[in-house]
Amino acid sequence: MARIVECVPNFSEGRNKEVIEAIVDEVRRVNGVKLLDYSPDEDHNRTVVTFVGDPENVKIAAFNLAKKASELIDMRVHKGGHPRMGATDVMPFIPVSDVAMADCIEIAREVGKRIGEELGIPVYLYEDAASADYRKNLADVRRGQYEGFFDKIRQQEWKPDFGPDEMNAKSGATAVGARVPLVAFNVNLGTSNIEIADKIAKTVRFLGGGLRFVKAMGVKLEERNIVQVSMNLVNYEKTAVYRAYEMVKMEAQRYGVPVVGTEVIGLLPMKALIDCAEYYLQIEDFSIDQVLEKRIVE
Amino acid sequence: MARIVECVPNFSEGRNKEVIEAIVDEVRRVNGVKLLDYSPDEDHNRTVVTFVGDPENVKIAAFNLAKKASELIDMRVHKGGHPRMGATDVMPFIPVSDVAMADCIEIAREVGKRIGEELGIPVYLYEDAASADYRKNLADVRRGQYEGFFDKIRQQEWKPDFGPDEMNAKSGATAVGARVPLVAFNVNLGTSNIEIADKIAKTVRFLGGGLRFVKAMGVKLEERNIVQVSMNLVNYEKTAVYRAYEMVKMEAQRYGVPVVGTEVIGLLPMKALIDCAEYYLQIEDFSIDQVLEKRIVE
Repeated sequence: MARIVECVPNFSEGRNKEVIEAIVDEVRRVNGVKLLDYSPDEDHNRTVVTFVGDPENVKIAAFNLAKKASELIDMRVHKGGHPRMGATDVMPFIPVSDVAMADCIEIAREVGKRIGEELGIPVYLYEDAASADYRKNLADVRRGQYEGFFDKIRQQEWKPDFGPDEMNAKSGATAVGARVPLVAFNVNLGTSNIEIADKIAKTVRFLGGGLRFVKAMGVKLEERNIVQVSMNLVNYEKTAVYRAYEMVKMEAQRYGVPVVGTEVIGLLPMKALIDCAEYYLQIEDFSIDQVLEKRIVE
Repeated sequence: MARIVECVPNFSEGRNKEVIEAIVDEVRRVNGVKLLDYSPDEDHNRTVVTFVGDPENVKIAAFNLAKKASELIDMRVHKGGHPRMGATDVMPFIPVSDVAMADCIEIAREVGKRIGEELGIPVYLYEDAASADYRKNLADVRRGQYEGFFDKIRQQEWKPDFGPDEMNAKSGATAVGARVPLVAFNVNLGTSNIEIADKIAKTVRFLGGGLRFVKAMGVKLEERNIVQVSMNLVNYEKTAVYRAYEMVKMEAQRYGVPVVGTEVIGLLPMKALIDCAEYYLQIEDFSIDQVLEKRIVE
């Protein structure tokens, strides 16, 4: 099992189980890819699908998913709490093992071209696959959402990378990209004061002058009567998990608030945690090839 | 690649390259197993081989190795610095993935029986596979070494578990066992005073009243003019790497000596490091199944 790419498409349907299963079946149907997870969210009316496999089969499954979503989802009647612009809203390709970012960019371009030309859906390349710097950030690409895209698409700077220059009313538009794996990492604080979590979040995140690859916000955990700094680490190789953790802890000290625990949400690559063990244990000259499982997967 | 067992046999030949290659070829010859490493040691006149695979094929390769070693190694002329009692001196089976310790004990019994009966070599089961508590510790089993075994084997309490009740003059005796993976972990201290490393080693190890699954000794690193507490963690699940590290650091403080770095020697299981990341990052309710690579290997 040499080369592995991960794909995490998000679809604008989180309530109709038949539709969700029919879409996910497109992953199950392809040999050489493995469905790792799918989590429908009723409030957001959105489903996140995670699958992995060799590059060729991931491309096939990814296109088939987008095709099935374009058949079964109608954006004209979609309502939900999460920002979205299309039936297949966003489709990132992520290098996992023996695959370079350049390969994932190439995959994003190929799949994006097919979605654009064969399905007639405007496609925007984003993150590492973006055709221009201002298109890198998904939030910038998606700003205006489905409803606003009928106008936005007519602006020269928002001409799609692939597909028609007009909005697809039924399927919307799709962002296809390549990126490093996201790590969702939350730090729980020993206080119920949400202002403290908010202030810390603003300090540690990129937007507030904090760490380059950290997005963060304060969240209240009602059941436990504590608050949390909820983070997305968008490049764990450059902004390591331990650095985000230590910075939250350091900022919490000024309020006399302890870190009572942390959470890793969903999946993360082995290296994100092993980098932390290396740091805290002060290991010299460590190679990921010393990890038994890494050698076996090779 | 669901079920994976590791086997790390040690052979009493570390100088004759032809013999070493002929033995290692027995691993290369079996489909379904993968040779990860082999390191001949000329001073010790001993070679450690590491391979992994599914249980059935690991059994086949392990027996073939012992057979080839019994043909090519003659213990009557063996000299070397490391304690040893046989051509195939020791052969542990180690659970890596989706295999229980009970399975490895069963493998050790099967392979041990074949070595005993088909090769006419006295076999002692050790560690988790031992037939009695006093046979668990390899050092106790091997005490007296090859030369002493001609007498030792006649004592009722050292009757072999499998094979003849008499020593095999050419091949010696073999210890076959099941155990958790060893982690070789060294802590480097910012001093050249070997007495400090020795004292700390004696404090942290089991024998000195320290941690249950730690073996330790002081070592001088001549080139760097520092000393090191060199440890074998014989059960990283029960005595975690971070605990051994923190205890050495704590003991070093009484001498005003800093930890300047650490080393992981050879291979170790992913979980040994991930347990440390979990500890230092205070992660709540973490499951190893959240690690992407773990899910892919399944």
